[in-house]
Amino acid sequence: MLPSQAHQALRNIVMSTGKLDEFAPIFYPKSHAVIGASADSQKFGGRFLKALLTFGYAGKVYPVNPREREIFGLQTYPRVGDIPEPVDFATIAVPAQGVPKAVEECLAKGVKAAQILTAGFSEIGEEGRKLEEQVTKTAAKGIRIIGPNCFGVYCPAGGLTILPGEDLPRESGPVAFISQSRGYVLRVSQRAAGWGIRFSEVVSYGNACDVNECDLLEYLHEDPATKVIAGYIEGVKDGPRFFKLLQEVSKTKPIILWKGGLTQGGARAVHSHTGSLGGEERVWDAVFRQSGAIRVNSLEELHDTMLAFLHLPPRRGRKVCVVGGFGGITVGAADACERVGLSVPLFSTKLQRKLRAVIPPVGTSARNPVDVGNPSPRPAILKAVLETVITEGDMDTIIVDEFQMSISSQTMNQREHQSGELARVPVDVKKRFGKPIVMVLPVEATGADEVEFESNQRKIRSYYLGEGIPVYLTLERAAKALSNLVGYYEHLDATSESG
Amino acid sequence: MLPSQAHQALRNIVMSTGKLDEFAPIFYPKSHAVIGASADSQKFGGRFLKALLTFGYAGKVYPVNPREREIFGLQTYPRVGDIPEPVDFATIAVPAQGVPKAVEECLAKGVKAAQILTAGFSEIGEEGRKLEEQVTKTAAKGIRIIGPNCFGVYCPAGGLTILPGEDLPRESGPVAFISQSRGYVLRVSQRAAGWGIRFSEVVSYGNACDVNECDLLEYLHEDPATKVIAGYIEGVKDGPRFFKLLQEVSKTKPIILWKGGLTQGGARAVHSHTGSLGGEERVWDAVFRQSGAIRVNSLEELHDTMLAFLHLPPRRGRKVCVVGGFGGITVGAADACERVGLSVPLFSTKLQRKLRAVIPPVGTSARNPVDVGNPSPRPAILKAVLETVITEGDMDTIIVDEFQMSISSQTMNQREHQSGELARVPVDVKKRFGKPIVMVLPVEATGADEVEFESNQRKIRSYYLGEGIPVYLTLERAAKALSNLVGYYEHLDATSESG
Repeated sequence: MLPSQAHQALRNIVMSTGKLDEFAPIFYPKSHAVIGASADSQKFGGRFLKALLTFGYAGKVYPVNPREREIFGLQTYPRVGDIPEPVDFATIAVPAQGVPKAVEECLAKGVKAAQILTAGFSEIGEEGRKLEEQVTKTAAKGIRIIGPNCFGVYCPAGGLTILPGEDLPRESGPVAFISQSRGYVLRVSQRAAGWGIRFSEVVSYGNACDVNECDLLEYLHEDPATKVIAGYIEGVKDGPRFFKLLQEVSKTKPIILWKGGLTQGGARAVHSHTGSLGGEERVWDAVFRQSGAIRVNSLEELHDTMLAFLHLPPRRGRKVCVVGGFGGITVGAADACERVGLSVPLFSTKLQRKLRAVIPPVGTSARNPVDVGNPSPRPAILKAVLETVITEGDMDTIIVDEFQMSISSQTMNQREHQSGELARVPVDVKKRFGKPIVMVLPVEATGADEVEFESNQRKIRSYYLGEGIPVYLTLERAAKALSNLVGYYEHLDATSESG
Repeated sequence: MLPSQAHQALRNIVMSTGKLDEFAPIFYPKSHAVIGASADSQKFGGRFLKALLTFGYAGKVYPVNPREREIFGLQTYPRVGDIPEPVDFATIAVPAQGVPKAVEECLAKGVKAAQILTAGFSEIGEEGRKLEEQVTKTAAKGIRIIGPNCFGVYCPAGGLTILPGEDLPRESGPVAFISQSRGYVLRVSQRAAGWGIRFSEVVSYGNACDVNECDLLEYLHEDPATKVIAGYIEGVKDGPRFFKLLQEVSKTKPIILWKGGLTQGGARAVHSHTGSLGGEERVWDAVFRQSGAIRVNSLEELHDTMLAFLHLPPRRGRKVCVVGGFGGITVGAADACERVGLSVPLFSTKLQRKLRAVIPPVGTSARNPVDVGNPSPRPAILKAVLETVITEGDMDTIIVDEFQMSISSQTMNQREHQSGELARVPVDVKKRFGKPIVMVLPVEATGADEVEFESNQRKIRSYYLGEGIPVYLTLERAAKALSNLVGYYEHLDATSESG
């Protein structure tokens, strides 16, 4: 352990907030009551119970419903207080009016934490706000509450999944995602699943009547399973605390943050969505600039940036080489990179001469971007270009832009062998030289009948992701994600020098 | 005919440049010589000839190759001069050194125009520049030249296709695309094909040694088949002429223009790509601001904006209503719209009350964006919301955001009937009220095994495109395309008032 790591470890202990222990019942409950359980999967309580069982929760499950004696073969209790054993965690899916009482009963039973899936609280106005206040007061007496107006917790290691998340991967991974919006929790988790991103914890925390974004950041800061934190937030309850936490947590774990509601229209929508105050864009500009949190502005950018942190090594510089096969695409590539602050430097005459020796003489460029003149080149050409650039080019990252590893099912059959060989080149080169490579593989085919191309493209994508090479659908998205990654480490270096 | 239309028609005649007649042999040749033809489809000349025949060119085709007597069953001539009949157009695919002589022979034969697919001219330096100058000089004596360093012309009505474009649609449409880059010609044409965009003419004009972007704009200005012009350019030969043309043509036909090489790295790449000068970003900022040409910065934005002009009526205002099914997504939607200058105004209390009567009471919003609380709502709910907003909302455009017309093949089977009904709602409403509707249908499924979802999504996409409803993959892209469309008509109105 380096002295700085030892210091950091010590510091983590010193500033521990005890959230790991406190939140253990939320993420790793040994027993789980579902209040408002039902056999009707059209109802939240029914759909959630089914999802939990399908997903494979390993602890004890207690359905609670005064009108049923058994649901899905499980003994069902009229009230949570009737359960004869201790209960760690409860999911509450009864109508809003019944929620405060359900929470009180959980407290009385000794349930340590609960998530409230029901909506109809502060986001709908005064009446809901009063209901929510009752829940907050009960929470203060000794039970932690996630929600209301949320889809709950997805924690594969704890056997928990969100509503409706029975199909989400059972494997854990290093990324955490917290979201005030239910919709995005589902979208981000589902999309990430197909892109090989695996999660430590995902939390849909809704109106945050008790556990809020700050509590979750403290937990994730300490959580050894989480290496990268992503979040969608609409408003914060305690601005100064949130800002200090972003600063502190960012020192060891990148925080990718999408702040919704920064425009006038967005801010209004936030208000009616989770009852939060949106905050002005210029205040948030400063928060992002000073805290080290990484600002993203869309679902796509959030996804892309998670992928960059998952696969690329830390502390990359801004110098990139783009290697492509269409002339026009290399011009667009240089523009796309430089627009987001990456640099596509002109290669030295010496390096250009070496590249000239391996690429065809016409319809190509050796300057950077490198244009090999053919989107389906002989594998040896791409290999020689990548190796030459890596050994002589002093580049920080190489972007391999839109080669046709397959064009269509027909073409794929004709050149399957060569295709496979071409696809392997970036993987072999990355392994041999340890240089970070980023792939751009567009979704190109568009007709309803051309999904076979799409299927091939996804297989190739999975292959690269499995080899630790991030894949992007467009060069613009690759460049932005890379720039976000580099910016984080630049901020880290700048603040550690000055601090 | 309105007086202003009559005036415009007159003006078009007055300023006619005669390009329609002059370029007829380029786009509608009655006979076509392929110089450097071959039976080997690995060679440009072989691949082009095969593409031309496969595509279904209806005129006479004369392969020219001194070493063959017959190619693909067609009599082959040693030189173009040996062809016994008149030749309108020639495609030249011989090696660069032989190109000047081939062009001279075409001139001597009386060929009216030729496209040079061969690369290795001004884009490679001094030697190539000299070769290109010879071609330019010959062109001045009475033959129009497209290229060199290009993929040629795709004009379905004339039976012509680019290299390699045998699979492109045979149907014509109202969009023209001109591109200095070969790669983008292929990419734009292929992608557009699957999205129902059909072209009048597509021209890959490469180094523009004779026919350049200005000539093509003049032609497209007069061409009755072209209603929307799109272009990818890297540099222009005659800046003032180009600017004046953009101004003039924009008055009657929108010009969607992607200028590559505006960053430092991009400008360098341009130089080695088509031998053009890139030009500074601030100069181009002014060109776009003053000319009325619509600026786009990527292949995706070019595509999206073509789609907007193809399907949406002119002179829309900036007020949009977004209707979605996830709360978080409506916040993001408002942000995405307002970031690009659209407005998502708060609905009146009266309208909110009417909407409240048709959407569920909790987990929803009636303010705008409208959140119906479920991405797969009952069709009657979406119908009532759209109708209420249209009749009472004074909105310019409605964006229907990411409803799950299908979720997965499994879900699709379960709710096929309801799915189809839900998908029909926007179409029925558009037909009944004539209000422009824009759909956002993401590509959501991501695993290699989930292409069935993708196939369903594409079928639904085709359905909407066939009904004149533009479809976008993300809300951000929809908003940008719509803003580009509105901006064009705003500029038009502002300049016609002041002029």
